[in-house]
Amino acid sequence: MPAALSPSRTDPAPVLAELRLLLGDRLSTAAAVRAQHGKDLTYHAGHAPDAVAFPRSTEEVAAIVRACARSGVPIVPYGTGTSLEGHIAALEGGITVDLSGMDRILEANAEDMDARVEAGVTRKALNAHLRDRGLFFPIDPGADASIGGMAATRASGTNAVRYGTMRENVLGLTVVTPTGTVIRTGTRARKSAAGYDLTRLYVGSEGTLGIITEVQVRLHGVPEAISAAVAPFETLEGAVDTVIATIQSGVPVSRIELLDALQMRAVNAYSKLAYPERPTLFFEFNGTPAGVEEQARLVEEIAAGFGAGAFHWATRPEDRSRLWQARHDVLWATKMLRPGAEMKSTDVCVPISRLAEAVLAARADAEAAGFAAPIVGHVGDGNFHMSFLIDVNDPAEMAAAEAVNDKVVMRALDLGGTCTGEHGVGSGKMRHLEAEHGAGIEIMRAIKRALDPGNIMNPGKIFRLDPAAAFPER
Amino acid sequence: MPAALSPSRTDPAPVLAELRLLLGDRLSTAAAVRAQHGKDLTYHAGHAPDAVAFPRSTEEVAAIVRACARSGVPIVPYGTGTSLEGHIAALEGGITVDLSGMDRILEANAEDMDARVEAGVTRKALNAHLRDRGLFFPIDPGADASIGGMAATRASGTNAVRYGTMRENVLGLTVVTPTGTVIRTGTRARKSAAGYDLTRLYVGSEGTLGIITEVQVRLHGVPEAISAAVAPFETLEGAVDTVIATIQSGVPVSRIELLDALQMRAVNAYSKLAYPERPTLFFEFNGTPAGVEEQARLVEEIAAGFGAGAFHWATRPEDRSRLWQARHDVLWATKMLRPGAEMKSTDVCVPISRLAEAVLAARADAEAAGFAAPIVGHVGDGNFHMSFLIDVNDPAEMAAAEAVNDKVVMRALDLGGTCTGEHGVGSGKMRHLEAEHGAGIEIMRAIKRALDPGNIMNPGKIFRLDPAAAFPER
Repeated sequence: MPAALSPSRTDPAPVLAELRLLLGDRLSTAAAVRAQHGKDLTYHAGHAPDAVAFPRSTEEVAAIVRACARSGVPIVPYGTGTSLEGHIAALEGGITVDLSGMDRILEANAEDMDARVEAGVTRKALNAHLRDRGLFFPIDPGADASIGGMAATRASGTNAVRYGTMRENVLGLTVVTPTGTVIRTGTRARKSAAGYDLTRLYVGSEGTLGIITEVQVRLHGVPEAISAAVAPFETLEGAVDTVIATIQSGVPVSRIELLDALQMRAVNAYSKLAYPERPTLFFEFNGTPAGVEEQARLVEEIAAGFGAGAFHWATRPEDRSRLWQARHDVLWATKMLRPGAEMKSTDVCVPISRLAEAVLAARADAEAAGFAAPIVGHVGDGNFHMSFLIDVNDPAEMAAAEAVNDKVVMRALDLGGTCTGEHGVGSGKMRHLEAEHGAGIEIMRAIKRALDPGNIMNPGKIFRLDPAAAFPER
Repeated sequence: MPAALSPSRTDPAPVLAELRLLLGDRLSTAAAVRAQHGKDLTYHAGHAPDAVAFPRSTEEVAAIVRACARSGVPIVPYGTGTSLEGHIAALEGGITVDLSGMDRILEANAEDMDARVEAGVTRKALNAHLRDRGLFFPIDPGADASIGGMAATRASGTNAVRYGTMRENVLGLTVVTPTGTVIRTGTRARKSAAGYDLTRLYVGSEGTLGIITEVQVRLHGVPEAISAAVAPFETLEGAVDTVIATIQSGVPVSRIELLDALQMRAVNAYSKLAYPERPTLFFEFNGTPAGVEEQARLVEEIAAGFGAGAFHWATRPEDRSRLWQARHDVLWATKMLRPGAEMKSTDVCVPISRLAEAVLAARADAEAAGFAAPIVGHVGDGNFHMSFLIDVNDPAEMAAAEAVNDKVVMRALDLGGTCTGEHGVGSGKMRHLEAEHGAGIEIMRAIKRALDPGNIMNPGKIFRLDPAAAFPER
């Protein structure tokens, strides 16, 4: 579906002329380029920017921001466009800043296990670079996202249960502020008590407080031994209870992923596999050879008590790659369940003790509303997704899916959880964020107003600046 | 030394009358109470507040803040008074809010390994409460600090190399904002992408953005096996190189602490011990019995290559307690090196590969300036302290110590490190913070102005609000 043309807040013509001088043909106003940059992979309506800029340095980004700031032209930062909550929609027009051309790995230090990369470096590119050095960057949201984008959305993914999220794995940032000033947050030190934690403020700020142009990340040693397994269960309850017992036992699993029966059917069809179409856990164990064997044995024992079938093991790297590629292709597999429909995903995260309750109730909600909505999750963290395939032109269907999402979110909040474990807020979860944070939203608003008084940075995202304004439609 | 009376910014009389109605005898204007609350354990001059309030609930704290906000009276939050950079000095008078009466453990959940405590609960009180449940709270800054204070200063300590700092171990907070609004940040979920990371903004904000009244913390399982060891080295280089090689080898040590020869002499004298008075590492290993044995063997091998003497092992809990108590008493032991003098401690943290350079140069700097300054450090993180014992009435000595500190800090920044690994900025490291953060300070100022427009929360700390103002003297 082509992206809608949005009413621009400001006449962009003078800024476009200025940026054309700066960037030459690295400024595009081609309709296809604009449309592609304003539409994500989900049900969110596309909103094309007036132009797309392709800078190659922090200084160019700063020059773009200064030009836009002078004219009040909105800016939308763009990494790989793989976010899921309308983050990249240019709701008020303006300039999308595509950072994919900033793809240099500036430093990688084996002895300190850290690296500094430009924002457009993707996680796979960084890991390819690190392959021969016994190190890897663990954060893995499925898509081959840019590290700048992953920082901006506080991404996590399958490895977070062991290695943490972008919150724990970013040491520092280079940020172009909304006035076009370049700042550097953090250092290469592992810890610091030096003032406000600006790194953590920008991580997860979704482009609303500035543009991240460089990221200093922690790296981790490639484990001596890695083993992966797929285990089918009689029931969804059995699979979830296995997760809870595993986490509570303290076994340091590096990945523990849940796919329900419908999700397994989609995966088999898309990835041409023949796994049992039953609730299934995907595991990965890291460590010494003896440690991995011990972890695996403990988890098999736990799972047996909850109705697990035979574990299917993958220890050769190519077998593990195939297994995790199938897991990572879940988004595409899900989309094939209803060709032509758009996807909308829930993303709650709850305390592990409440995971079974949250997952089972979510499935019941979806079934009661008549949706065949597969469930997949990074369940070791208490985080899961239920995916709706919807006809975005059917308002009743859209409303019904949103009503289920509301129920799932409000239940998660009641259980002590969060409305979004990893996808972020964008324009899709603003109501839920306000429900979660209450008066805290006013603190976020005050920070936004202080740092971006002209509201040029990714406007219309995360929260309503004006609490009396309407929530965005899509 | 009695605390100086500071000129108060505002006549506190009307607020005192209002607070007396609210708190009765839980508001003190006794000179001794005020002096004690305005003076920390270090060289910083004391600055007594006009009164000290002892609230018992978040609501009382909010009422105190609202009263002060109406009159523009400064507020200094106070936990146990064990911070080291003048954080608690009431530089402009006002009300110190002592949170020690808020000492309830509100929740402790074994199945999710988290707890919610009031800000005045100390780390030892929480761990005593958890003792029978197989859980512990690892952050350990030496002093039996309050968990609220530890959050406010982003504390870490001996266990951070394995378990992280307060940054990683706080899930959420209850905060009274500078307008007296109560907000709750974070949730019980392990991860979240829900908006700006307010939790991490308040962690380390040193009371300048609000008062933390409750803390939701992560807990960890007590390891099956724990073993500790003390190892003397021929040289300081050998000890530091052992640390570097241990961290780079990936051995998951839970503690690895350095004490130089002078520090060991101080420890022996204060704690009545007879360790060799040589550069020494204190280790702790956690895990399964087999895992602990493997870690210990690997580290002994590494250490042997760098001139270690015999390891002295402590596996019985009482022996380990004695060993770590000696380590935790370093501050008191150091003070005994020169009775009557006050202490001033450096606190840089550098990338581990640069640790030897940073430590050896720091010692050379101190020696060149004629100081016998013992060194102790959480060296697994790259963090170490050099302690000066100074006559605060001797301006030349004060200036000489500060000059050495400057050198140590500027070198750490050159090496990619930070001016403070864990002590925070207070009024003592404001110049260094500005050197470290450059233009980022303006972002911190903007946040402070937005959230505390009257500058009532712990004024004069972390950074100069007005960049043209003078830095505080002490």
